[in-house]
Amino acid sequence: MSAPEPRPIRSDIAWSTSDRVVVHGHDLPDDLLGKVGLGDFAYLVLFKTLPSPHESVVFNSLVVALVEHGLTPSALVSRLTALGAPESLQGAVAAGLLGLGDTFVGTIEGAAKICQSLPDDGWQRDEALLREHARTIVDGSRAARKSIPGLGHPVHKPNDPRAERLFEIAREQGFDDANERLFRAIRARAEDATGKVLPINATGAIGAIASTLGVPWDIARGLGVMARAIGLVGHVLEDRERPLAKPVWNDAEARSTSHRS
Amino acid sequence: MSAPEPRPIRSDIAWSTSDRVVVHGHDLPDDLLGKVGLGDFAYLVLFKTLPSPHESVVFNSLVVALVEHGLTPSALVSRLTALGAPESLQGAVAAGLLGLGDTFVGTIEGAAKICQSLPDDGWQRDEALLREHARTIVDGSRAARKSIPGLGHPVHKPNDPRAERLFEIAREQGFDDANERLFRAIRARAEDATGKVLPINATGAIGAIASTLGVPWDIARGLGVMARAIGLVGHVLEDRERPLAKPVWNDAEARSTSHRS
Amino acid sequence: MSAPEPRPIRSDIAWSTSDRVVVHGHDLPDDLLGKVGLGDFAYLVLFKTLPSPHESVVFNSLVVALVEHGLTPSALVSRLTALGAPESLQGAVAAGLLGLGDTFVGTIEGAAKICQSLPDDGWQRDEALLREHARTIVDGSRAARKSIPGLGHPVHKPNDPRAERLFEIAREQGFDDANERLFRAIRARAEDATGKVLPINATGAIGAIASTLGVPWDIARGLGVMARAIGLVGHVLEDRERPLAKPVWNDAEARSTSHRS
Amino acid sequence: MSAPEPRPIRSDIAWSTSDRVVVHGHDLPDDLLGKVGLGDFAYLVLFKTLPSPHESVVFNSLVVALVEHGLTPSALVSRLTALGAPESLQGAVAAGLLGLGDTFVGTIEGAAKICQSLPDDGWQRDEALLREHARTIVDGSRAARKSIPGLGHPVHKPNDPRAERLFEIAREQGFDDANERLFRAIRARAEDATGKVLPINATGAIGAIASTLGVPWDIARGLGVMARAIGLVGHVLEDRERPLAKPVWNDAEARSTSHRS
Repeated sequence: MSAPEPRPIRSDIAWSTSDRVVVHGHDLPDDLLGKVGLGDFAYLVLFKTLPSPHESVVFNSLVVALVEHGLTPSALVSRLTALGAPESLQGAVAAGLLGLGDTFVGTIEGAAKICQSLPDDGWQRDEALLREHARTIVDGSRAARKSIPGLGHPVHKPNDPRAERLFEIAREQGFDDANERLFRAIRARAEDATGKVLPINATGAIGAIASTLGVPWDIARGLGVMARAIGLVGHVLEDRERPLAKPVWNDAEARSTSHRS
Repeated sequence: MSAPEPRPIRSDIAWSTSDRVVVHGHDLPDDLLGKVGLGDFAYLVLFKTLPSPHESVVFNSLVVALVEHGLTPSALVSRLTALGAPESLQGAVAAGLLGLGDTFVGTIEGAAKICQSLPDDGWQRDEALLREHARTIVDGSRAARKSIPGLGHPVHKPNDPRAERLFEIAREQGFDDANERLFRAIRARAEDATGKVLPINATGAIGAIASTLGVPWDIARGLGVMARAIGLVGHVLEDRERPLAKPVWNDAEARSTSHRS
Repeated sequence: MSAPEPRPIRSDIAWSTSDRVVVHGHDLPDDLLGKVGLGDFAYLVLFKTLPSPHESVVFNSLVVALVEHGLTPSALVSRLTALGAPESLQGAVAAGLLGLGDTFVGTIEGAAKICQSLPDDGWQRDEALLREHARTIVDGSRAARKSIPGLGHPVHKPNDPRAERLFEIAREQGFDDANERLFRAIRARAEDATGKVLPINATGAIGAIASTLGVPWDIARGLGVMARAIGLVGHVLEDRERPLAKPVWNDAEARSTSHRS
Repeated sequence: MSAPEPRPIRSDIAWSTSDRVVVHGHDLPDDLLGKVGLGDFAYLVLFKTLPSPHESVVFNSLVVALVEHGLTPSALVSRLTALGAPESLQGAVAAGLLGLGDTFVGTIEGAAKICQSLPDDGWQRDEALLREHARTIVDGSRAARKSIPGLGHPVHKPNDPRAERLFEIAREQGFDDANERLFRAIRARAEDATGKVLPINATGAIGAIASTLGVPWDIARGLGVMARAIGLVGHVLEDRERPLAKPVWNDAEARSTSHRS
């Protein structure tokens, strides 16, 4: 049997000729390099258009807030992987990214989905309706025994200072605050229902504001992935200068089997 | 045997209290969010200090130039991985990053190593000495039958427009051009020796300019890793809208075993 | 603030002293090496006990059937990754494994979940009840517009020869065939309802038989992961001897942007 | 410009028709399933032929010895990754595999390279020549300040019981012991030169015996990758039953920044 005719394929992200490189319709060397920062270029990658100055401030603040969250499991993973494969920085960063799943960065997705799944009934301009939606969301989550993505933090109480500042930046830049008000109503309802202090955390604010910017919820996890890759390079670097992964591993190994020897 | 006492460990990248988050000594909510773009924050991650305005322009141009290189093997890998595991955007991006090894992004590392391995003999101010070093590098590579990292491109001839623009930006911002002149001398020597057109490519220019900025060569690969994570998110997005991975796979599968059926 | 006391941790998988290595209670050098094959050792890892001879035959056949599925997206991914990072075989295999998600190997999980989610009402010995469950499963999937995991194959029609042989092996080794009969009833109902030929495919049979062996459904994906790691090493090897990834990439790159140049 | 004609590609690993699946020339359902264990199938993947009974015993013992090495960095990485992305078992295993680089499993590669890089001068039958080669290898490594792959172990002294048993199995099965004798001579020379106890460790023995079986050194790392994928599934399982990653992370996070708060 002869090989079948290949099917047509097409990509419109980038193309080049001998003396040109074009990305999303912009000449890379002439119109982007030296003129556009990394955050604005990331916006171009997601939205296929460059941001306005207001969009740029807000988008950059969202991704900056996601780069570095301290010694997370992902940071430990990148450091431990570099211990075994020091020749492969890409492997160490990739390993760390693999932990950005449902538990951590997936909450951005969940928070964005909440904002983007509401009916188009004008709740943005109707506080009573907004509160009703908030009540439905909280009560539904409680009935299903699920936590609400974007609420709660073990350290930042009563408020997560990053979330508060991100909301403020979005307002300063003239963006509609409906998603912020929605999350504040969700928080109030959840605190009433549980008696706990449940701050809107950074991923909650990011999911809400990303929705305002127009990031589809099923892509929202990508903000965390692209930002954290930067932070994980930093953790591999610090581990070269001041080893942390090796003592953590050695201690864990010794302690986990000390009952046997 | 009782478990041993854990050894002290320490990280200085970030720390937080109930109402503060500090990254590399800067208050994240108050001093960074809304004020610092993603590229400058990446500079902070690498250098532990924020860039000057000149450093900012140059550093952002380097990483922007690395985000998107078209339908590379890495881009295909991320798209193919999303086909099998659509639930895991982090897995698709991580898979794509794993191809940023010795062949592609590793050439940044190689180019930077060339610049950073020269003796401290004042070659930066002595053209004859600079040309002598260039000759040694080229002749050594040819004797070892190795290609010179950062030289040559299948499409961009006689010059890679990205490399030329990046060098120009670095000069415009007032940076020393010694590493650029070194690479131009290496190129001239290599073209003389081989009779081929060997443009300084983007990774060559990035390795040279990153060295001028003070990026240690054994970290230089990290510039490509952090930048490409952004671009790979974009390829997964385009593949959702206009599937390319599936026809590429189907065609390859059908054609690769068509001699058997 | 002083560092808190570490919490106790414990692993019972393996431990060692200067002259002993013990895995799941067995002396590795004396009792396992040279006596136990890789498949039986994998069974030990999953079940914490070695298999009986019958369990060994069936378990080995399940994982053997998962090692190699031809030029899958995962195989292409491992080959493409090795192109960019030839220094990192572990990276190439890891990249390929990342595509073993919901679309492909996840169907083992789905098929196993079907078997393990039925009520404990004696359906295994009551054909009418079994058919009723099959009907509920098929009709529920159709109402939710979801495909049934483990049914259907683009090439193997009317039957997937691997699935048929795996069921036969399980019966030959004396295992209960209730899960096989359940899947045959599901198939019959689905074919009646759709008018299509819907063979039980390899992952369907594996999910069913793994359930009979006692593999919890939320671990069933692990069978595919451990087996496919072996197969992906083979694809990287073949690509070194007879390059396939490079022409696939070059063709895709040229064709995907040919409308622009 | 029209798209170019695709180049021919070919894979000979597997092919299928509606009622057949063939792997490396063997009918999978009829000739392999139920008859060949996972280890022998892995041998088929590497060597394109099934093993003899003697080869089978030795090969299975090598890969079995690599499955489980206790709470290694890779095991911690897989557990920590599952913490963040419990939905993606493939991601957790892939992350763990990424640490199988130069430091750990890469030593199999190094040990095999030693055996396979010696000149074809009959050293296998000439003890004086063998000792001379051992001396050259040790003295060369010491002059280059490099450790010798396959020698030394922090716990197993004076001998690694896995290595000793693996060598014994290879002899029992009738294989030439030249590579074993070479490594014993290397050990003796290294101990003389350093005054330290330097057992041949498991990866050293595996590299030596794999060379005897005919595994090319630049593939030897693949033995570790395929085996460890199995072991890492086991670690993710244990972490679900008895969480270890979470306390390790929590402790590391608290302790690493306790100097700041």
